[in-house]
Amino acid sequence: MATLPVEVKTTLSESSDIVFETGKYEVCTTTVRTSHSSKPPTRLFIVAPLTEGTYDVLLFCHGFMLANTWYTNLLRHIASHGYIVVAPKFYGCIPISIPAEVKKAAQVTKWLSTGLPLVLPDKVNLDISNLALSGHSRGGKTAFALALGELDKKSHKKKKPLVRDNPNLPKFKALIGIDPVGGSAPSCRPPPRILEYIPRCFNMSVPIAVIGTGYGNQSLCICPPFAPDGVNHSEFFNESKPPACYFLTKDYGHCDMLDDGIANCLSFISKSGKGSKDLMRKSVGGIVVAFLRTYLGGDQKDLDAIVNDPSVAPIILDPVIYV
Amino acid sequence: MATLPVEVKTTLSESSDIVFETGKYEVCTTTVRTSHSSKPPTRLFIVAPLTEGTYDVLLFCHGFMLANTWYTNLLRHIASHGYIVVAPKFYGCIPISIPAEVKKAAQVTKWLSTGLPLVLPDKVNLDISNLALSGHSRGGKTAFALALGELDKKSHKKKKPLVRDNPNLPKFKALIGIDPVGGSAPSCRPPPRILEYIPRCFNMSVPIAVIGTGYGNQSLCICPPFAPDGVNHSEFFNESKPPACYFLTKDYGHCDMLDDGIANCLSFISKSGKGSKDLMRKSVGGIVVAFLRTYLGGDQKDLDAIVNDPSVAPIILDPVIYV
Repeated sequence: MATLPVEVKTTLSESSDIVFETGKYEVCTTTVRTSHSSKPPTRLFIVAPLTEGTYDVLLFCHGFMLANTWYTNLLRHIASHGYIVVAPKFYGCIPISIPAEVKKAAQVTKWLSTGLPLVLPDKVNLDISNLALSGHSRGGKTAFALALGELDKKSHKKKKPLVRDNPNLPKFKALIGIDPVGGSAPSCRPPPRILEYIPRCFNMSVPIAVIGTGYGNQSLCICPPFAPDGVNHSEFFNESKPPACYFLTKDYGHCDMLDDGIANCLSFISKSGKGSKDLMRKSVGGIVVAFLRTYLGGDQKDLDAIVNDPSVAPIILDPVIYV
Repeated sequence: MATLPVEVKTTLSESSDIVFETGKYEVCTTTVRTSHSSKPPTRLFIVAPLTEGTYDVLLFCHGFMLANTWYTNLLRHIASHGYIVVAPKFYGCIPISIPAEVKKAAQVTKWLSTGLPLVLPDKVNLDISNLALSGHSRGGKTAFALALGELDKKSHKKKKPLVRDNPNLPKFKALIGIDPVGGSAPSCRPPPRILEYIPRCFNMSVPIAVIGTGYGNQSLCICPPFAPDGVNHSEFFNESKPPACYFLTKDYGHCDMLDDGIANCLSFISKSGKGSKDLMRKSVGGIVVAFLRTYLGGDQKDLDAIVNDPSVAPIILDPVIYV
């Protein structure tokens, strides 16, 4: 599936830097409430290295009715490789609309430059010029919508640009959708209706990685699939302009990258993989790190290694595509 | 959108060979009934050059509840460039299932070597080693299913291989889907369920062109769209392995490549473009000819010209993608 020439034999970075293993940085987690003096627009869960230094930043949007803290292990994995991860909590028990989520995510993005330095460990700094965006499930759609800079786009017409070309917002250099979901069916997509069912139509130039799950489109008991055909990873990748990568975690389910407790609970309503959830988290986290290293750090070695030989990952990735 | 380097300036073949104009060959149309001595498995509509020579062959599958003869102008355009087009009639007033269509199409494919020579004009011969396959709407799905060689594939499991690896069948060297439709929704796809919602998953190596229509996914009055989002051109292209081309006829509808009379009738139930239907037919026909010239004739000049500069076509093609 790889588009890179097979004779280019590349291997993963070695020793403590292997993307699929915990990285070399010890990390800490912090919850920042809206009452904090930095005035975050919503409650934030932050995972950051403890070692003195300047780090790139990843904004992470949680899935529908999922807490931002339920991704702790995945986000720790990413941060351990030298990234500051900021995961907003969009709502409590009562979900808000996706446009409202996009708006909150934009407010958090704006807050990063001034607010984040106030909540980071001593001598830990952020490089706001190296900012990436990610999200899982409905949060994946929120991330794409934020990158597209649109609040609502009904009937293929742009209505209210929310964040695009806003000079107050830092620019995203990479976008990663983790099993993103655009609605319950092509005919049932809540606003913003970012999917247009035209290949490569997303009107943005940011490099995109889409990580899909093989079981996300399958129903369990009476529950409909969490990532139905036609509105899931496959279509998000199809509508992404190059450079774009695609990875299918073939034998895992839509919620298998969450922390063990919640992933096991959700396995009663969403088909889950039989393999180790820890390996799933390491694989998803490793892909994210390899992608960030490429498009934030300028080092493509690990991404090339995965694309050239997906078996370097601890779980089956099939297909892997890089255009 | 083009993946070819822009500095490669190519132009369409000139004079009487321009793909978007009627070609240099005078053609005739023939209907061959099942009672004919060549024993065709179903009634056939054949369009062939009259000039002495040996020509490549295109098998064309009509759409749901559409007659094979309603594509006469489109098929004449293609044949005028030196191709023999064979369009089976799959049924009369009562449609058959898609697996039954695939089976009939396979029978016609088998018949070509022995039967077609008996019904062609004097001194007109076929080159069965240069065979291509195409289809419109549901017939596009039938064509893909025939090329995939599968009768039914429920739940991602191959059940009954129908034609694949059948040594009695000639091999298709090119596959062209004209606004192909896989069902009424991702959740409502009749067998064979060839769409799997995984990028590049079609298990075949034949070069593929997908021509979509911009209005096919729109409903008109109380009629649902003829080519709904999630099961239309976009997904067929997404699941095609390279080499694959994609062309969106942005301002035209699902039935606008049919002959004028029927296209105008259908415009009451399927959203139609305001532009000239003749230009739509010339554009679709021209793309087909350029694709056949590339993968049957080994001459990529016209396809490159369209990909490098889609404005060479008489209608708007946007996007045009070649991977």
